[in-house]
Amino acid sequence: MNFLEERIIAEGVVKSGEVLKVDSFLNHQMDMELLDDIAREFKLRFFGKPVTKVLTIETSGIGLACAVAREFDVPMVYARKTASVNLDADAYVAEVDSYGTGKVRQIMVSRKFLKPEDHVLIVDDFLANGCALQGLIALVEDAGASVTGCGVAIEKSFQEGGHRIRNLGYHLESLAIVERLDPETGAITFGTE
Amino acid sequence: MNFLEERIIAEGVVKSGEVLKVDSFLNHQMDMELLDDIAREFKLRFFGKPVTKVLTIETSGIGLACAVAREFDVPMVYARKTASVNLDADAYVAEVDSYGTGKVRQIMVSRKFLKPEDHVLIVDDFLANGCALQGLIALVEDAGASVTGCGVAIEKSFQEGGHRIRNLGYHLESLAIVERLDPETGAITFGTE
Repeated sequence: MNFLEERIIAEGVVKSGEVLKVDSFLNHQMDMELLDDIAREFKLRFFGKPVTKVLTIETSGIGLACAVAREFDVPMVYARKTASVNLDADAYVAEVDSYGTGKVRQIMVSRKFLKPEDHVLIVDDFLANGCALQGLIALVEDAGASVTGCGVAIEKSFQEGGHRIRNLGYHLESLAIVERLDPETGAITFGTE
Repeated sequence: MNFLEERIIAEGVVKSGEVLKVDSFLNHQMDMELLDDIAREFKLRFFGKPVTKVLTIETSGIGLACAVAREFDVPMVYARKTASVNLDADAYVAEVDSYGTGKVRQIMVSRKFLKPEDHVLIVDDFLANGCALQGLIALVEDAGASVTGCGVAIEKSFQEGGHRIRNLGYHLESLAIVERLDPETGAITFGTE
């Protein structure tokens, strides 16, 4: 087990066969040292690949994306889920199924922050059905920029997202791949790609 | 002018007499080095005061709060604006007027992450009418924890938030205090407390 898998075993809580809570260290409450460790691991896994920007989607991935951006010494940009009073009308827009709420929502990023010359590392805390990553990939490609790869902390391999993203040919790195959650015993089983 | 005021002059855009856009470096797109500089400045300004946790509210303050938490070597917690499928029912709840949307929303933080022994530094990117900070203060006090102070990047002193928070006796530090925004000329005037 790697450091993230160990932390998940120590503090993660199985809420159902599909929901794993890691809110004591990865989202809601965040352990900065752990986020930096994950960022350093992505630095190794994407070694030699160009990265000019880190992109995530609000909200729970922002802390991790900040740590990754800092490790790569590039800016971090997060896609917004709703139009805000402060957001330019001049934005790239994609549609995303939200796993948490089941609603389809638009996500957007200002055209100022994604340029054709950008090489983008997409980062998120969780990968489930892959809709968030696919939405982010669509934003990058709309901008004519390149997707360097996707780095997620936790992939739930019993959902189709990881399979889907890899099948599309993207370089996806997941630090912990959860194969099975047992709500009866609370057991968490890890797997590989 | 300090480093943040200089950056605001260089890249900030006056959208109206009330709205200053700093989305190229503070929110939407974030400059990690700038966030670290702001975090170091808060470390100086709250020197000698106990801090066991950094608290912010989603979304735009999360990046800055992460940088501050890392500088103080403590966890970061963000209050959520809506109930999520993953959030405990067992949460502290407060009401907040959202400046961006004008709606009253509930914010909440899990009881697990605020304890009576905590000394909390509240962090946000903007201070306008002070409702977000007051909501966060209410969460901390509901938990029986102590508010060490509030650190914000940009205070708009032509709105009443800063005055209100200081009047209540809280230690508030704002790195850039914007006194006036001129939508005609685009001029930004800084002031002091």
